[in-house]
Amino acid sequence: MIKKGVCLLVVMFFLSCKSTVNISKDVNEIKTVLFQSAKDWSKGDLKGFMKAYWKSDELQFIGSKGITYGWDATLANYLKGYPTKEHTGKLKFEVLSVKFLSKDLYSLIGTYHLERKVGEANGIFSLLFKRIDSRWVIISDHSE
Amino acid sequence: MIKKGVCLLVVMFFLSCKSTVNISKDVNEIKTVLFQSAKDWSKGDLKGFMKAYWKSDELQFIGSKGITYGWDATLANYLKGYPTKEHTGKLKFEVLSVKFLSKDLYSLIGTYHLERKVGEANGIFSLLFKRIDSRWVIISDHSE
Repeated sequence: MIKKGVCLLVVMFFLSCKSTVNISKDVNEIKTVLFQSAKDWSKGDLKGFMKAYWKSDELQFIGSKGITYGWDATLANYLKGYPTKEHTGKLKFEVLSVKFLSKDLYSLIGTYHLERKVGEANGIFSLLFKRIDSRWVIISDHSE
Repeated sequence: MIKKGVCLLVVMFFLSCKSTVNISKDVNEIKTVLFQSAKDWSKGDLKGFMKAYWKSDELQFIGSKGITYGWDATLANYLKGYPTKEHTGKLKFEVLSVKFLSKDLYSLIGTYHLERKVGEANGIFSLLFKRIDSRWVIISDHSE
């Protein structure tokens, strides 16, 4: 009985060590999520764009006016700021840095370029990407 | 000999599980580091202010112009932008959010207010705080 217990502990120890990280695979998956969101935006599909974000009231969007909390409020802000296809235009991201922070957590810094008739827009953003339920989602977005 | 090995594994397993997290203690320690940096800044001591930052070439400072990499380059930018005590003025931080991300890693969002004769300044920032060698340091700063 004791031996069985010891065996179980040993197995559990090895399982606890097994959690390997494949950074290049993670980074590719994260970039795929990001670039898909730009494609959805460029189709004028803001709900599709928002699939990259954590569907939670804890989502944080940081802008010059403060923090917006939650997926719904963030989408509402986008719909208000970009009401038509003329406003959404064509979105392009450039990734400047992706950094491993801890298992299932990365920071990503990039720039955006919005091409549209009502006036171009450019800026920089820093994101936190977390793997939740096997999907990479943005849990925090600081855009300016 | 085998029994000793098993014993060692069991001890290692328990050690690997022992890493408890005390969030309120961590948050207090992080705020102490942040507010000390504001005190140092307000004395015109930018090197003291920079003690809150990771002394590494990997430190990331994100601003509208892009990413500045490294402690030295970040200090150089501050010294250039705030050359005299008239420029540094009195710095006040307000913490809006501190979030646990993973063991030894937190995000902090806050606002700054700079009171000075050459013109007040206000803004928002998002930081990543990491415990490295038993000290909390900023590894990433996005300020606008």
